[in-house]
This record gives sequence, C-alpha cells and structure tokens, in this order.
Amino acid sequence: MRISELSRVSGVPTATIKYYLREGLLHSGELTSPTQAQYGDSHVARLRLIRALIGPARLSITTTKSVLDAIDAPQGSVLELLGRASMALTGPEGNDDPQAARDLIDQLGWLVEPGSPALGDLDAALQAIDQAQLQLIKGGLPRYADLLHQIAQAEMDTVPTDTAEAAVRQAVLGTVLIEPLLIALRRLALQDAAIRKFGQADL
Amino acid sequence: MRISELSRVSGVPTATIKYYLREGLLHSGELTSPTQAQYGDSHVARLRLIRALIGPARLSITTTKSVLDAIDAPQGSVLELLGRASMALTGPEGNDDPQAARDLIDQLGWLVEPGSPALGDLDAALQAIDQAQLQLIKGGLPRYADLLHQIAQAEMDTVPTDTAEAAVRQAVLGTVLIEPLLIALRRLALQDAAIRKFGQADL
Repeated sequence: MRISELSRVSGVPTATIKYYLREGLLHSGELTSPTQAQYGDSHVARLRLIRALIGPARLSITTTKSVLDAIDAPQGSVLELLGRASMALTGPEGNDDPQAARDLIDQLGWLVEPGSPALGDLDAALQAIDQAQLQLIKGGLPRYADLLHQIAQAEMDTVPTDTAEAAVRQAVLGTVLIEPLLIALRRLALQDAAIRKFGQADL
Repeated sequence: MRISELSRVSGVPTATIKYYLREGLLHSGELTSPTQAQYGDSHVARLRLIRALIGPARLSITTTKSVLDAIDAPQGSVLELLGRASMALTGPEGNDDPQAARDLIDQLGWLVEPGSPALGDLDAALQAIDQAQLQLIKGGLPRYADLLHQIAQAEMDTVPTDTAEAAVRQAVLGTVLIEPLLIALRRLALQDAAIRKFGQADL
C-alpha cells in the first residue's frame, strides 16, 4: 500500500509517519519509484506499537527508539528480547550489584540477572527506608515481595508468544502503564484503611 | 537547651536549624534574652520529622512546609490530620470526581473522600490502559485492588496514635518511601517470572 493508505489503515497522519521514518522508528517501505514506496502489514504492526509506546506509555522518542532497537536486534529468544526491551526502558546495566538488594533477591530465591538496573532502584529504596527508620509492615520486606510476585506472575501470563512485536508491546506497556495504577490504588487503599481505622473513634 | 545543645542532640548543624527557623519549618524557641532562645523536646521531635521528610523522603522545602502546616492546624482528629498531610503531599483537591475512577472505587466498596487527588491519578492510569488496549491480568482491576488493599491495611496497622508527629511521620514516610520499593520489587519480580516462563524453552 502507499503511504496515504498506510495512514488511513493505521490512523496515523502521513506527516507523522514521515517523521517516524526519518527518526528511524519505522522501517522504510519498498521503493517502487524514486519518489514512491510500498508499505505492508509489518508497517501497520510497527505503527501500532510506536503509538502505544509514545501515547499511553508516554515514552520519549529516544526511549521508544531504544526499545525498538532492542527488539530489532537480529537474534535472541523471547526472554532475551524482553530483557533488552526492559534494559532500554530502565537505563544502562550497573556494574556490581548493590549488596543489600542482591542479598534480598537471593533470600527471596528470585532469578535476576546480575547488573539489572532495578537492583540499583531497589537498593536506593532500601537505603531510604533504613535511613528514615521507617516501621515496616508485619512480615516485612518478604511480605511486600510476595504480594508483588503474585502480581508479576499473573502479568507474565498475559504476555503472548506468537510475535516479537506482540510480546514486547504487552511486556513494555505492562511495565510502564501498571506502575501509576499501583501507586494510585495504594494511595486510595490507604485512605480507605485510614478511615476504617481512625474514622469511627475520632469523628 | 540552647541552640548549640539542640544541634548536638538532634545531629542537625546549627546553621541548618537557623535556616529551618527562618523558613518557618521549626517553631521559635522561648526568648530568654534578645539574642538567646531556649529549645525543648518539641524542637527535637520536629527536627527529626523535618529531616526524615527532606532526607529519605526527598520532599522539597515547600512540600515539607505544606505537610507541617497541615499537621499544625489547631484542631482535628488523627484521621483529619492524616488527610491534610496526604493532601499536602499529593496536590490540591479536584472538583468533580472522574467517573471511571469513582465507579471503580464504589465497586470495590472503598471509603474515599470526594475530591481526593489520587482519584485523578487513578483515572489517568485507567485511561492510558484503556487507550493502549493493554491486556490486564486474570481477575482484572479488582485483583490489583485486592492485593494493594492487603498492603495498605498492614501499613495502616503500623501508624502509631500516641502523638501527631509520630502518626504523620509514619504515614507520610510510608506513603512516599514505599512507592519506589514497590516499583523496584515489581520490576525484579517480572524478571524472575519472565525467566521462569521463557527461560527453559528458549535458552
């Protein structure tokens, strides 16, 4: 199909498609004349992925390009592909794993690649909690970990394995879009719990 | 005690204490001469709270002042106090509750004040998920809600009720410091779940 048809099918304006082509987010069509190219289903699928990453997931063009580059690498299993996409999302690999984070992960028995950026995030969170001498919930860190692992396992069950685009779309969008949901739901759940605990006696 | 003693007891440098006094974060001591003031236990407690909010919780001076102003309001139950602190933390009250968020909260049977800012956050998250046509986990939103409510209830059980400072300290720090922990743990749990799901067959 021509670019005007691709625009109609995908719902993405022609000017935007041309911008994605220039930025290297979308692969070129097949040239049928010096000024005309043909596009196919792979372009429609890629546009859908780009729009989801830039739109609801609010990734920058640069991060979107990194995620797409990661899944375009010529070879790799679904696991490697998800790993590369997640790395593109969260930043460069660390050097040595921070001790407190690695200890907790090992204690939990989780399989986590050395150098994973999220280990650095976990370590920073643990340090802040420690520094503030925050009183943790009954059951402590393992209880938080257990509840989040239940979520993660259910989420991984939603990742399709038929195409790379579909797998990365679900995994990356799931990572990025569910985080604000969890934060908002927790704050509202805290309100509910506070009203139930302090509401009756005080008001 | 004099300011030098307050500095020693609290571990906060004198210059920093003076800065907090100027900014209105810390209440003045009792003047014993035109150039000298006496400080007491209430100053030590307040300094501990300020340091926790600015340090590990990384609140700005402005947000810290809003949280402190909220708990300094002359009257109110523990619940009102927590509500004001949470409001100071998350931003101004909204006008009308967004429909999708309010519907979900009502469906869950949660008690949430009208105009709560977190309802706006929830609504934005729901819109993004909807727009991206993200495949949710089995059990959908109620399952996420249930897991987070388990967390919130356990967290509310850690909030002490003996002093306003202690209650707000635990509630505000808990809100702010646990969020990065949840995000980091989920990303690592997703890695573990991905390796367990895709690792064997693909590698």
